[in-house]
Amino acid sequence: MALRYKCPNQVAIPAFVYACEENISRRSPRECIIIGSSPVTTMFAAPVHRRGFATSCRALAGLTGPVESRAVVFAEHGDPTKVLKAHRYRLDKLDKGQVRLRFELGAINPADINVIQGVYPSKPQVREDIGPEPLSIMGNEGVATIEGFEEDGQVEHRFKVGDRVVMGAPQLGTWQSHANLPHSSLIPLPSDAHLHLRQAATLAINPPTAWRMLSDFVPLNPEDPNSVSKGKKKQWVIQNGANSAVGQAVIQLAREWGVGTINLVRSRPSIDELKSHLQSLGADHVLTYDEFLSRENNTRTKIKEWIGRDGEMRLALNCVGGKETAEMAKLLSMDGKLVTYGGMAKTALALPPSLFIFRKLTSVGFWLSNWVQTHPEERQTMMRSLAELTAQGKLKEPETEVVELAGSDEEVAEKMSGVMKRIEEGRGKKILLHWKDE
Amino acid sequence: MALRYKCPNQVAIPAFVYACEENISRRSPRECIIIGSSPVTTMFAAPVHRRGFATSCRALAGLTGPVESRAVVFAEHGDPTKVLKAHRYRLDKLDKGQVRLRFELGAINPADINVIQGVYPSKPQVREDIGPEPLSIMGNEGVATIEGFEEDGQVEHRFKVGDRVVMGAPQLGTWQSHANLPHSSLIPLPSDAHLHLRQAATLAINPPTAWRMLSDFVPLNPEDPNSVSKGKKKQWVIQNGANSAVGQAVIQLAREWGVGTINLVRSRPSIDELKSHLQSLGADHVLTYDEFLSRENNTRTKIKEWIGRDGEMRLALNCVGGKETAEMAKLLSMDGKLVTYGGMAKTALALPPSLFIFRKLTSVGFWLSNWVQTHPEERQTMMRSLAELTAQGKLKEPETEVVELAGSDEEVAEKMSGVMKRIEEGRGKKILLHWKDE
Repeated sequence: MALRYKCPNQVAIPAFVYACEENISRRSPRECIIIGSSPVTTMFAAPVHRRGFATSCRALAGLTGPVESRAVVFAEHGDPTKVLKAHRYRLDKLDKGQVRLRFELGAINPADINVIQGVYPSKPQVREDIGPEPLSIMGNEGVATIEGFEEDGQVEHRFKVGDRVVMGAPQLGTWQSHANLPHSSLIPLPSDAHLHLRQAATLAINPPTAWRMLSDFVPLNPEDPNSVSKGKKKQWVIQNGANSAVGQAVIQLAREWGVGTINLVRSRPSIDELKSHLQSLGADHVLTYDEFLSRENNTRTKIKEWIGRDGEMRLALNCVGGKETAEMAKLLSMDGKLVTYGGMAKTALALPPSLFIFRKLTSVGFWLSNWVQTHPEERQTMMRSLAELTAQGKLKEPETEVVELAGSDEEVAEKMSGVMKRIEEGRGKKILLHWKDE
Repeated sequence: MALRYKCPNQVAIPAFVYACEENISRRSPRECIIIGSSPVTTMFAAPVHRRGFATSCRALAGLTGPVESRAVVFAEHGDPTKVLKAHRYRLDKLDKGQVRLRFELGAINPADINVIQGVYPSKPQVREDIGPEPLSIMGNEGVATIEGFEEDGQVEHRFKVGDRVVMGAPQLGTWQSHANLPHSSLIPLPSDAHLHLRQAATLAINPPTAWRMLSDFVPLNPEDPNSVSKGKKKQWVIQNGANSAVGQAVIQLAREWGVGTINLVRSRPSIDELKSHLQSLGADHVLTYDEFLSRENNTRTKIKEWIGRDGEMRLALNCVGGKETAEMAKLLSMDGKLVTYGGMAKTALALPPSLFIFRKLTSVGFWLSNWVQTHPEERQTMMRSLAELTAQGKLKEPETEVVELAGSDEEVAEKMSGVMKRIEEGRGKKILLHWKDE
């Protein structure tokens, strides 16, 4: 095994690293080769870390030797508050083209609940190799730092140690501290965007979902050559679940692209705060479901006035599937599209046949996992644009809360059970998991 | 007014016609010009008719003078068994580009019930000119013979007297004996197809609906350059309401195009007869809704076996919207299309969000009236193909019953009330209206 190690940015590899590890050979002030299987121990990694060379330098530790990853796993599908366990396993040595990741933050999304329950169509791999029983490591979204890689003629051109990456394939297991993954399953974040970790950890699933839904059915992105916004009627979008992470990205992208939004949310004690928050992101109008469905309020008439004769609403985005979904669809103009990307109400989508027959409604779904399989290059371009918008402050990440995982496996499992309980009760911030150094 | 009259086919205009009508000037053995407003009376039309020159020659009568049309009308929307009336009105003289039609058969379709109730989006014109109160003349489908026309530089190239036509625009009022209509609203039937009247009267709405649904969403017509059938997996279609006129056309076109069909119908005392009939048209499998929905029968497994590994089902056609619709959608492969063209169950279409999100289901509607507006030329081509298939016996018209209308207005209204009652009770043959000569 020969592992090329490049120090990130302008940081040189400190001389004492070579001094205390005989199997490191120097190639340049910022590049060295680690030869053989002799471990680069944590003995020197710790002082490197202290000297401020960041996680990427600390990461030298264990690249060629045993490293333990801590992971949130399940052995059997079931109630998310009950079946999650914490587990430790040894990472193998890197294979060709594999990358050693240290996860900085692992995100929890609503769909993860369904993954744990076993009702989500894409599942994490069942790992026979990491414990006495087969286990699945949870986590679909997150941000990680590259600690090293094993050259294969490609990976060394795509990544350098210290790069931040997001997941480019589903269900890679982001709720763990470390992982060995093929480089092709990762998407680099542009280093000049200088995203902070919370931004990076929430960039790969929800904002792309919003971008695609605003682009692929009724093209609203003015940079799209097929955009319907250019010199034509002002375009509008209506969405439910507008305070979801996707909903907030929709609001902000729509504002950037000159598209009006009508946003529906659940009523709650702090509804005025929520309305103000969404408006601060660029929401044109925010209504509770009750306000939207109420006949007394003449909401239909109001919405038609908002859109006006110079406007047109051909797109509705649905992640709920409740009563309001049909009403959203009824507000669409001829040839409208209803795009469903979630079903939080857990009921069938009930739509009058007449909308399909006479108003040319099309009801479709959107799932990023399907889209990415057929659009690998478009995805890279979109991710760069999203990172830029985020860096420019035009796309704010959703409100997040970082949950620190530490202590014994029992303590971690108990903490995860509490997190799952809170998520099922709803209305919290988006939770990001962070493994404390041991 | 100068009206060119051409005798149809090889029939020459008999000499005595010129003799007894001073305003007819001969141009050729088969063509003459009627000048001025002097009536060509029924006095000579009757003997022409007797001599076997058919309705087109009889039609000389009244072209330039007053002709009365008898029509089934309504003054106000409401219960179809109550609001229909019979009415007589004088046809105006033909304007430029107008055609005088004699309706041979006017068809009754399920949607006509909704037109009378006032809940159908396209409505017949409210006529202020035909009686003391505003009236709407019913009827969307039918076959008529051209009795004459007024030249406008176009109509004379498109039609000759005696041609059979079907309606090329919606709600033209086919439930009447005669009408003046712009030639552009009519579609000529190829005279060499020699369709009989029942075939012609049922050709313009239902078979085109079947053709488009099998072509526009998952292209199954092997003559279509985008056809998915060519050298690929055998394609299958599932449909409910399979014994409707559209359903029967779907079965026959699918058989012609090498596409398999799974057909769902309501159970009834004569279910075996119905199954045999649909199978004789080419249905691969016919199931009642109960058989389809029953879990005991393992219908899902059976259907998957029928389709097999060499087959694929990407298209479901729905005119009901009952419980079976979601089950049909669940049987579709990835990227399937559910096309709704009716809503007989009068309920919302209830579909699980997961089908849209994970299975890429698209739910759309089809309404011929929308399609024809944007595809005038494609329509002509399709109608020629449909007429040919019908002439070749490959596309049988649905079972029909001709109801003769005659007698006083009260008698006609009473007969129509009875017809409407029978239609609302369902399960009858398709009814065609014919006005008896008076």
